[in-house]
Amino acid sequence: MESAGRRAWIDTFVLPLVVTGGLAAMILDTAVNPDSGWDQILIAVVIATATILATEFMVRIWVAPEGRVIDSDSAWRVRADYLASPHGLIDAAGALALPLAWLYVPEYRDAQLFVIVWALKYVRHSTGLLLLIRVALRARAALFTVMTVFFVVFLGASTVAYFFERHAQPELFGSVPRAMWWAIVTLTTTGYGDVVPKTLWGRLLAGWVMVSGIAVFALWAGIIANAFAEELRRRDFLRNWDLVAQVPFFQNLGAAAIADIVSLVHARDVASGTVLFRRGAAGDTMYFIVSGEVSVEIGPKPQKLQAGDFVGEMALLFGAARSATVVVTRPSLLLVLDIANFRELAGRRPELINVIEGEAERRRDANRAFSA
Amino acid sequence: MESAGRRAWIDTFVLPLVVTGGLAAMILDTAVNPDSGWDQILIAVVIATATILATEFMVRIWVAPEGRVIDSDSAWRVRADYLASPHGLIDAAGALALPLAWLYVPEYRDAQLFVIVWALKYVRHSTGLLLLIRVALRARAALFTVMTVFFVVFLGASTVAYFFERHAQPELFGSVPRAMWWAIVTLTTTGYGDVVPKTLWGRLLAGWVMVSGIAVFALWAGIIANAFAEELRRRDFLRNWDLVAQVPFFQNLGAAAIADIVSLVHARDVASGTVLFRRGAAGDTMYFIVSGEVSVEIGPKPQKLQAGDFVGEMALLFGAARSATVVVTRPSLLLVLDIANFRELAGRRPELINVIEGEAERRRDANRAFSA
Amino acid sequence: MESAGRRAWIDTFVLPLVVTGGLAAMILDTAVNPDSGWDQILIAVVIATATILATEFMVRIWVAPEGRVIDSDSAWRVRADYLASPHGLIDAAGALALPLAWLYVPEYRDAQLFVIVWALKYVRHSTGLLLLIRVALRARAALFTVMTVFFVVFLGASTVAYFFERHAQPELFGSVPRAMWWAIVTLTTTGYGDVVPKTLWGRLLAGWVMVSGIAVFALWAGIIANAFAEELRRRDFLRNWDLVAQVPFFQNLGAAAIADIVSLVHARDVASGTVLFRRGAAGDTMYFIVSGEVSVEIGPKPQKLQAGDFVGEMALLFGAARSATVVVTRPSLLLVLDIANFRELAGRRPELINVIEGEAERRRDANRAFSA
Amino acid sequence: MESAGRRAWIDTFVLPLVVTGGLAAMILDTAVNPDSGWDQILIAVVIATATILATEFMVRIWVAPEGRVIDSDSAWRVRADYLASPHGLIDAAGALALPLAWLYVPEYRDAQLFVIVWALKYVRHSTGLLLLIRVALRARAALFTVMTVFFVVFLGASTVAYFFERHAQPELFGSVPRAMWWAIVTLTTTGYGDVVPKTLWGRLLAGWVMVSGIAVFALWAGIIANAFAEELRRRDFLRNWDLVAQVPFFQNLGAAAIADIVSLVHARDVASGTVLFRRGAAGDTMYFIVSGEVSVEIGPKPQKLQAGDFVGEMALLFGAARSATVVVTRPSLLLVLDIANFRELAGRRPELINVIEGEAERRRDANRAFSA
Repeated sequence: MESAGRRAWIDTFVLPLVVTGGLAAMILDTAVNPDSGWDQILIAVVIATATILATEFMVRIWVAPEGRVIDSDSAWRVRADYLASPHGLIDAAGALALPLAWLYVPEYRDAQLFVIVWALKYVRHSTGLLLLIRVALRARAALFTVMTVFFVVFLGASTVAYFFERHAQPELFGSVPRAMWWAIVTLTTTGYGDVVPKTLWGRLLAGWVMVSGIAVFALWAGIIANAFAEELRRRDFLRNWDLVAQVPFFQNLGAAAIADIVSLVHARDVASGTVLFRRGAAGDTMYFIVSGEVSVEIGPKPQKLQAGDFVGEMALLFGAARSATVVVTRPSLLLVLDIANFRELAGRRPELINVIEGEAERRRDANRAFSA
Repeated sequence: MESAGRRAWIDTFVLPLVVTGGLAAMILDTAVNPDSGWDQILIAVVIATATILATEFMVRIWVAPEGRVIDSDSAWRVRADYLASPHGLIDAAGALALPLAWLYVPEYRDAQLFVIVWALKYVRHSTGLLLLIRVALRARAALFTVMTVFFVVFLGASTVAYFFERHAQPELFGSVPRAMWWAIVTLTTTGYGDVVPKTLWGRLLAGWVMVSGIAVFALWAGIIANAFAEELRRRDFLRNWDLVAQVPFFQNLGAAAIADIVSLVHARDVASGTVLFRRGAAGDTMYFIVSGEVSVEIGPKPQKLQAGDFVGEMALLFGAARSATVVVTRPSLLLVLDIANFRELAGRRPELINVIEGEAERRRDANRAFSA
Repeated sequence: MESAGRRAWIDTFVLPLVVTGGLAAMILDTAVNPDSGWDQILIAVVIATATILATEFMVRIWVAPEGRVIDSDSAWRVRADYLASPHGLIDAAGALALPLAWLYVPEYRDAQLFVIVWALKYVRHSTGLLLLIRVALRARAALFTVMTVFFVVFLGASTVAYFFERHAQPELFGSVPRAMWWAIVTLTTTGYGDVVPKTLWGRLLAGWVMVSGIAVFALWAGIIANAFAEELRRRDFLRNWDLVAQVPFFQNLGAAAIADIVSLVHARDVASGTVLFRRGAAGDTMYFIVSGEVSVEIGPKPQKLQAGDFVGEMALLFGAARSATVVVTRPSLLLVLDIANFRELAGRRPELINVIEGEAERRRDANRAFSA
Repeated sequence: MESAGRRAWIDTFVLPLVVTGGLAAMILDTAVNPDSGWDQILIAVVIATATILATEFMVRIWVAPEGRVIDSDSAWRVRADYLASPHGLIDAAGALALPLAWLYVPEYRDAQLFVIVWALKYVRHSTGLLLLIRVALRARAALFTVMTVFFVVFLGASTVAYFFERHAQPELFGSVPRAMWWAIVTLTTTGYGDVVPKTLWGRLLAGWVMVSGIAVFALWAGIIANAFAEELRRRDFLRNWDLVAQVPFFQNLGAAAIADIVSLVHARDVASGTVLFRRGAAGDTMYFIVSGEVSVEIGPKPQKLQAGDFVGEMALLFGAARSATVVVTRPSLLLVLDIANFRELAGRRPELINVIEGEAERRRDANRAFSA
């Protein structure tokens, strides 16, 4: 556990910092005087980073089988799986970038440019890499169609522009390949302005190309956005399901009810010592405790609530201010249900709300007893 | 009540106007001759605005606890809460911008530029600030992933462009940091045209960078748009729920029915004297009265309808023209149900429509009696 | 009826053509030599168009009350309503553009430029004007927030750019108003390239401004797109409801069932003589007849189907090829149910499909009798 | 079957390659020295491609009626249908481009440019052509409205820009048609920078035009994206329905249940020899076999599963690792149900999951027997 925490910390903070240092050194080295002292320092930083990443790669190969119950024979198979995974490939590219480039590129300063592949480490340690790959796969058919259409428009525009402009501007439109530079700059609405049609027909074509470009990229945007939204929904659904299924309060419900709840809550990690809410404050959320412990500061002696309990329901049910201050006493994982979703849940699963209401009334009576 | 109205008026109209005046003076002052009389007038306007905003800030600190039932001890806590809130921070920045800048910046005309933070007041008084913050929080994970991908593409494009173009255009692509300027201008498809690749490989890279830029920003657009739409839906749901729950006609319905209705109506504030609809006009909306009073101009003596009543249902039910003119006689808050949503409601909650239909038939018979 | 058809034809084809002629004449007149004969011809065309539009305006005022059952007194009120409606305002602007401009602008050729307001006639005769207005109203709160944010970013970017670049490029960034030109060109990613930051800090700011611009417009796009989609859905729902409610076959269903059907069909106008489908072809749609008549070419004598009947269901139910050719014998309005939606309907309303299936089997047996 | 496979292979790989070769030759020919040997080779390649495409066209006309049960008389009708279809038109254009151009264009090198229509062959062989046409049809009304608005803004901007800038820059804004070039470049935010307003009013107009341009294209993007998403959903629904209906396990369910399942599974073609999953791996998908055969490597003798069986359900139900390795032994078509959708299905159709659970428990007991 200890070691797992340390590793996550290294992955999230230390390695990106090391990579950033190495990349910054490489980038700055292209700007400094090669004879100055700075040059040597920067090259040293790049080589040091390369050494760290190579070491990291070897450690990762070694520890890949850890935490899996497997016989020693299949340990090497797990290592091979790691090497063939996207993560393994990025790590390998990072470790081998400088040595391989050094071998094949005569000039060291040129070889050093190849460490730009270290930038892939940023997406490797972000959780988003897998998500983006899934999005691309989900939308691949539609994206491919749009790219084909884009390519057809691009070829057509280049050829027609060459036809219209070749005599007016032979330098810039003297062949179809030259006209292609104009076409891509216009089709993406980048519009550098270094190549601009001058003839009437060339300008009519240009107007049409600009509008087509926007239409094509609007299609592109729509497809990616749709695929992204669906993929996010799917991921959140899976993550929340696992958490909801851990709460005893929900366990004797059918799958249909759990599916409803899953779409209405979201998870939150809370550090020990956090004040969830204070007595007297306005309240618009309730909490289910997945793991950890919270303390309700009411009556002579604070009341402890643990995994499976819920808290904060009274403000939602009776619309009143918070009746007690609640403090998190151990690092906790909570499911948060806000008032909008609470009301939707009340619509879809009245029986659930009845149970919460029963508990809330029991608690309110207990509170009155304390106050009396 | 009186004073609350005056305050809202100051927040919505007076303060934005003051801020606009101060900002305009500061902006124009950079364009006028520093020795002309205009300069002194503009500086005076800026200082006057700064004084008003500082006064406003102190008043707001003082009145922060108003309207809350709290003991005098916690009044200061409420003030501290205000200061730590986004609203408080914007007010503080507005009040302190000029004095602090004056203290640390030697030249007054430079110090004056810092009053640009007053522009934040525009979003402070708009209700949208909180909404935008919630949208950003909701989408933060996805936006962070996309920004990481953008950064990786940006670094890669800069390095490769440097490699391809450094010999052809040493002035513009002579180091990676210089190539970065080209990369950001191209990746966002801004395309100033001051830096343009000249080599074949540089242009192939540029085409790829433009297309990548559009793909990355399409992702961005999709994520923001999705998060915004969901957040808006959530806010409308909450606001309408509170209003629907106030209408007696709906109060003995279960939460499920209320949730259905909430998604189908929208709220409208109507001033006294407004004609909701005229006799004989075509009608496609009905109204539930949350608060206020309307008068149905039918029969010998107009009939008054109050909170909890509804009006306009006959045109929806029988498809006929409006059978009476209806005028708002006191400032009213109405829930509007248009014909498309009425029909959806008829599908989901037939029992509700039956009650409305019963009332409508009762009224129609009464009307006939009047006419007879 | 005759006259209504002629009027629709004038609105859809004749008037846009007249407007296009007038606008083209005005536009070309700015390009021709004022002393050539062409000039006089073009001016004549503009004046002729103005005359036609003024006549049209007066006719429209006169005929506004037509087709409404009202007493002569309120006829003038209907005319006033027309004048105050968006359509009336556009017509008035079109009729008065040239005369008013002539009155107040000394030079006729300048006055003539004002006829550009005729372009509004294009949206007046398109059915989309009302739709766009509703979309703008629906999204107005969100759009206003985004525009405020845009304005704050714009002001901030201009001031900071002025601060960074004023010494390096006093000509282009010498005051905040001048820097504003750069800011708007960059924030919209237009990037003319006439004003480009040169300092390091100016370029860092520019990168941030470009990315902000895209983020702001992504918000904008998302909001508009959402509002547009919802508005379209609402309009289609209303239009289809009215048609579905006319089909006898659906009339004894409850509102819930009708709401389901409405979301699954779409309407299509079909001219007399159209072949809906041919015998032996693969079929993936069925048709409900709202009005008109179709003829099923089967057996010794074609069978006529009229309003309330349906046709084409066999190919959907039994997956076979079309068993008869069906021809439209009178101009008809049909509701089309395609196979994907038919299957969804089968899921939601099995009882409805049972009725269709019963009728289909009855027909199939009848066909067998013919063939035998 | 054999021949169908070969034809699909020609359509997907050979013809696009031939077209790419021909287009590349035409494009490169505009860049080479017309007196060099390369010129003759490239022209030969173009003519060869034209010959192949003409042959392909004639073969397609001939084989069009194949695979349909029709009498010889209607074979020619099928051929005519093919010629009038989008596919037929593209093929005809491809076959006739060079010969017709040769006939009417005096210079062969100019005639050759017309072979750019071959690029349409890329979309002809992609499955996306039909999809894009359907999207355009579905959104045509909304797109037409937006284009009208765009056109009105474009005309207005050109006229006003001419009015503001004509004296300052008579070369660039000397007539409305000239100002149109500036307007289209600005409205699409391309911003070449060759024409830039210089006056204060011209720049204010430009700022407004840029913002309008983005708003118009945001509308455009939203409409296209919506239509595309709906069309894709419809297509997937239809394709999956046909597959689900083939699985015996689902056949005695009602249409409502099938509609639910259809929206939750997706189809996958799997080659013989593929390992679906390995024993001991974590599992998050189950598979229904539409056609083909898989082998479960458990117990003394592998167990064969065929069309209608399912596999992989245990990992989903009991959350355990895969209990057996499963290999595909014949080319198979599988329906994949992943864990997120499995849980949704459990919510909507508990009876179905019960059947799967019963089978899973039976299998688990059988496995225990093997292990014992």
